[in-house]
Amino acid sequence: MSLEKFFKPRSVAIVGASQQPGKVGYEILNSMIDAGYEGKIFPVNHKAQSIAGLKCYPDLASIKQSCDLVIIVVPAPVVPEIIRQCAKAGTKAVIIITAGFKEVGKDGREFEKQVTSIARQSGIRIIGPNCLGVIAPSSKLNASFGGDLPLTGVIGYLSQSGALLAAILDIANASNIGFSKLVSIGNKADIDELDIIKAFAEDKETKVIAGYLESITDGNAFVREAEQISHNKPILLMKAGGTAAGAKAASSHTGSLAGSETAYEAVFARAGIIRCTSIRQQFDYAQALAYQPLPKGAAVAVITNAGGAGIMAADAVERQGLTFAKLAEKTVEKLASQLPAAANLYNPVDVLGDALADRYEFAIDVVLDDPGVNTVLVLLTPQAMTDAAGTAKVVVKTARKKPDKPVLACFLGADKVEAGLKIFLEGKIPHYDSPQKAVSAIKVLTDYFRWRSKPKRVVKLFPVNRRKVETIVDRHLRQGIRDIGEAESKEILEACGFVTPKGFIATTAEQAASIAGQLGYPVVLKIWSPDILHKSDVGGVKIGLEESQEVMDAFDLMMYRIPKKLPNAKILGVLVQQMCTKGKEVILGMKRDPNFGPLMMFGMGGTMVEVLKDVSFYLAPLTPEEAKQMLINTKTYQMLKGVRGQQGVDIDVIAEGLQRLSQLVTEFPQIQEMDINPYMVGPKGSTPIAVDARISVE
Amino acid sequence: MSLEKFFKPRSVAIVGASQQPGKVGYEILNSMIDAGYEGKIFPVNHKAQSIAGLKCYPDLASIKQSCDLVIIVVPAPVVPEIIRQCAKAGTKAVIIITAGFKEVGKDGREFEKQVTSIARQSGIRIIGPNCLGVIAPSSKLNASFGGDLPLTGVIGYLSQSGALLAAILDIANASNIGFSKLVSIGNKADIDELDIIKAFAEDKETKVIAGYLESITDGNAFVREAEQISHNKPILLMKAGGTAAGAKAASSHTGSLAGSETAYEAVFARAGIIRCTSIRQQFDYAQALAYQPLPKGAAVAVITNAGGAGIMAADAVERQGLTFAKLAEKTVEKLASQLPAAANLYNPVDVLGDALADRYEFAIDVVLDDPGVNTVLVLLTPQAMTDAAGTAKVVVKTARKKPDKPVLACFLGADKVEAGLKIFLEGKIPHYDSPQKAVSAIKVLTDYFRWRSKPKRVVKLFPVNRRKVETIVDRHLRQGIRDIGEAESKEILEACGFVTPKGFIATTAEQAASIAGQLGYPVVLKIWSPDILHKSDVGGVKIGLEESQEVMDAFDLMMYRIPKKLPNAKILGVLVQQMCTKGKEVILGMKRDPNFGPLMMFGMGGTMVEVLKDVSFYLAPLTPEEAKQMLINTKTYQMLKGVRGQQGVDIDVIAEGLQRLSQLVTEFPQIQEMDINPYMVGPKGSTPIAVDARISVE
Repeated sequence: MSLEKFFKPRSVAIVGASQQPGKVGYEILNSMIDAGYEGKIFPVNHKAQSIAGLKCYPDLASIKQSCDLVIIVVPAPVVPEIIRQCAKAGTKAVIIITAGFKEVGKDGREFEKQVTSIARQSGIRIIGPNCLGVIAPSSKLNASFGGDLPLTGVIGYLSQSGALLAAILDIANASNIGFSKLVSIGNKADIDELDIIKAFAEDKETKVIAGYLESITDGNAFVREAEQISHNKPILLMKAGGTAAGAKAASSHTGSLAGSETAYEAVFARAGIIRCTSIRQQFDYAQALAYQPLPKGAAVAVITNAGGAGIMAADAVERQGLTFAKLAEKTVEKLASQLPAAANLYNPVDVLGDALADRYEFAIDVVLDDPGVNTVLVLLTPQAMTDAAGTAKVVVKTARKKPDKPVLACFLGADKVEAGLKIFLEGKIPHYDSPQKAVSAIKVLTDYFRWRSKPKRVVKLFPVNRRKVETIVDRHLRQGIRDIGEAESKEILEACGFVTPKGFIATTAEQAASIAGQLGYPVVLKIWSPDILHKSDVGGVKIGLEESQEVMDAFDLMMYRIPKKLPNAKILGVLVQQMCTKGKEVILGMKRDPNFGPLMMFGMGGTMVEVLKDVSFYLAPLTPEEAKQMLINTKTYQMLKGVRGQQGVDIDVIAEGLQRLSQLVTEFPQIQEMDINPYMVGPKGSTPIAVDARISVE
Repeated sequence: MSLEKFFKPRSVAIVGASQQPGKVGYEILNSMIDAGYEGKIFPVNHKAQSIAGLKCYPDLASIKQSCDLVIIVVPAPVVPEIIRQCAKAGTKAVIIITAGFKEVGKDGREFEKQVTSIARQSGIRIIGPNCLGVIAPSSKLNASFGGDLPLTGVIGYLSQSGALLAAILDIANASNIGFSKLVSIGNKADIDELDIIKAFAEDKETKVIAGYLESITDGNAFVREAEQISHNKPILLMKAGGTAAGAKAASSHTGSLAGSETAYEAVFARAGIIRCTSIRQQFDYAQALAYQPLPKGAAVAVITNAGGAGIMAADAVERQGLTFAKLAEKTVEKLASQLPAAANLYNPVDVLGDALADRYEFAIDVVLDDPGVNTVLVLLTPQAMTDAAGTAKVVVKTARKKPDKPVLACFLGADKVEAGLKIFLEGKIPHYDSPQKAVSAIKVLTDYFRWRSKPKRVVKLFPVNRRKVETIVDRHLRQGIRDIGEAESKEILEACGFVTPKGFIATTAEQAASIAGQLGYPVVLKIWSPDILHKSDVGGVKIGLEESQEVMDAFDLMMYRIPKKLPNAKILGVLVQQMCTKGKEVILGMKRDPNFGPLMMFGMGGTMVEVLKDVSFYLAPLTPEEAKQMLINTKTYQMLKGVRGQQGVDIDVIAEGLQRLSQLVTEFPQIQEMDINPYMVGPKGSTPIAVDARISVE
């Protein structure tokens, strides 16, 4: 969908234009005129003949031509009628600035419904209502009351908060940061965040997409499209507020471990979106992404005229998980040939306090040539001889000469380095006011390159007995039972190719002992009741039973004690099960996010998982690489590989288990939450066992 | 020690004063004159008659009076002679600006030694050499070449990097941040960081102590004194670079888990020092600490005119581990009485986009009165009607009226909020350019209050058989054996009141089986060799042996296999030991930091500890509260308390074990590293067992 009429209209009507300063209808008209808009402006106000020297029209019809864009600032109750007039006049793009719609309650919601319904029938696209407007500097269009027209730049910005957009504009204008377009999306009655992001993706003026969001309208579409777009243009988002899903009571380990932010983190990781926590940080990252190439690796070299600043940068490099480049011998020799004897020739390269621009130029040039260096960070503190402007010039010059590696700068100081900062701005070298912030930007560049370099996502499919799964799920749904019991949960898992331990239900102690004898010792006893989900909490699990007497004792104790604790639980018997004694316990799980779909979880198994919280999440469906990465993202992974003389377990079968689970929950959207816990995994080549499982459907 | 002569000298001589711009001797003289210093300035230079209108002296003797302060800028080889002249003239305070001392090698080190030796003999105190100088705005003293005299303020600043200090000055001057004193400590030949910190602690003009350090001269004294001082004045430090200790190869779990930063983190936690990672962050925190009271709790209330900004603050509050204040019913009612209907009356209180100063004033006033609110954060974004200056004025006014709770502000924007920021600066309301930064400052205030409110540290002492420990330790030292074997390590533990499992050495398989029979099954077999520290790595540990045949098999396998793997290890036999099967495994450990002494460690036990890294560190000697806190700081703590129907273990005996260990390593500085791993702990009232231990001495 093209939003060109919003960004490059040839004519604009302002319905509700006013001659009274302070009124929104005045401010918007003023913004349009001040910005130097070169198309036609038609103020619409039936009470005035002319406003700000422009002829004023009583209504849209009397303009006698179709305006490309109509901006509406009249009160909400009148807006549906204006949209009807737009339809008649043939206008296809409307910005509704007016507030008082769905955000204020029932009446407003009704107006908003009318507006969207009329618009949909007549092919009108709407930005807003309850928004600040649209700005497109290259068209000299400031259809907003957010502030002065900013510089033309390469950042496309969208904001779900108008108030924040005003602050963003003010900060950007003070820092000479430019934009391709800015859009305040307001209530998103029609055009939503994804429409704007897609428009920015296609927009030639936009190199970086940035925004502030509080909610996402269509989670699935968002993930799918944003992932595509991130391969071409970086997306930087501030996301405030948790999801409603976080508040729901959880019925599984996975459910209780997935915090309100987990889904967004998984979505952003999958779609390559870079998350920001403040306006200035977002600009910091945007500058680097807009103007510098992506580094091919994580090795950072630092050039400084002050040891202390170099150490601070080195600390930050280590803390951020980047690597400190080891300079090649040839590089060190070359540096030695021209730098003073006291200079430090290793990373961080210290060109000393009396360094002038030429010494910096030489060092940057030599270090950029080192094949082991991916990114160069230039630091400077103002000392007696320091030439901030001259040094900035050589940074710009040298970086341009070698455009395949990113160069960033941090000149510590204020007035004494200001002349340098201006040169950086013009020369498109991103500048940061602390070594830490510069290193954070390098980290973002590095991670984004890594994300873009990932192989294409190909999900592997496994055979599933769909009929069997369907039968069990449907019966539970029909009967209104949310939680599927252990036995049928395991049947579902078996239908997906998982192996579960053998076991049978006993209703008497003697029968339990007899089953145990047939299965072979040791065995586990588990209470069997549709009403008891967390069996171990009520003493409903007894492991490691070695002989018939122990089995009978455990059976009778459960039958005696549990009804006392839970008098209303329907107890069907006790499951006598083979006990898996060899291998390590992990947990595979899933929790469905209402907006983004199934969130897969992997972690250390057993009851420890909720204590240690060593878990990782990712959005289904999983590719083999993503499943493996979920393992690697936990500390448990080191243990699974084998530590200190202990044999490791079969990593690949765990990853395969995650993929099978991912496929199950993707194919059966009825499944809301599930855990396989523990999933018992042995050494390479052995068969993993799904020892216990719970599945909830809705 | 008073450093008054450095900060309030009545007369200053500059040895090496120069009339040539660009020279340090010129810059310093210029700085002194520009700052408007009111005492006498004596330039010393035998080549000039007068400099900058001041009479010039060929040497110190010809001044014919003793100067309070002498600043030396002549080359290093001449400096010892100048110090001799200072001694003769009776000067007691000297700043050596000159570089070229110990930082450049052997010759320089020799000059520095001479200088300190002469100074010590004659009672002269020295700042430097290789430093930027000293600044004291209230005395109009700028004895430095770092930049213009800053404003008079309440921050006392010390820096180990001169170059960084110049940047700090430049940033502070541009942001109108003032100082009580600034000291560049250079090579710390005489006066070191602790001397300056102590002087600032006693200085009435200084309310906040801040600094940048790369090393600490006397770790023990630093911890002791800084802890005292932090109870009266906050200390904010940037610390760059890791410790040398981190590079040493570790011989214990504790050793390998203690990173290069662990010691500093423990020192800062113990001494209440607030760690900063950048200059601007340090100023951010200093402003809050200097001008606001400490909050009595973690509950934060936010007042905003923009929903988005409020949500961002709320997210930050949650992320930082603070609590979002729940406003009292009375507060909500009162807010409702005057705020517009659409306003949000709950935290964050949204006074709406059209709020003027009066609405803010009312809301701040009401919210500050809520007893459940500890800190108030005022947010503003510039909107159509917004009055940044007026709003800032009422923030200042209301905060002054209720001086017992901190009030901080964040006005998002630049030019449109600038007038407000000036009012905040004058009104001493700390202002931040993002909600995140404001919340970080609140976190610092809250943590610092918590630290100051801790009860006095009282270490509990336990009976120790010192003779027994001494005998074992001394013999190892005499024989040059670093690692004490398991048997003697346990004897040491027993001397401190720990209980260890019974066990005996067997040299034949039959003997092993016979010992096992006497101890009772199950037993553990462990290879017995002074040369094998990590027994399980070489298959030297076999647990859970249930009968004599298993014991004999395990014995023979070890005797056959281990000499093949480690042909040079001297094998003395196999330890047959009772096996503790009940309880949870934890690890208690210690690693001695060369500068700060014993660092205690607690974590989850077994081989998992190095994988999961769920450990906490603290400086010995431990108080009972600190020992307990070390447990609470790990995730393992939740597990130890008991999860999901599992019984918990005796938390207090673990904390006691840490204290016993802390006492042992405090009393025996020869012990370099040690682990008790696993330390097996059962339910309340049971006796914990030190199952395995290793101790290294030096």
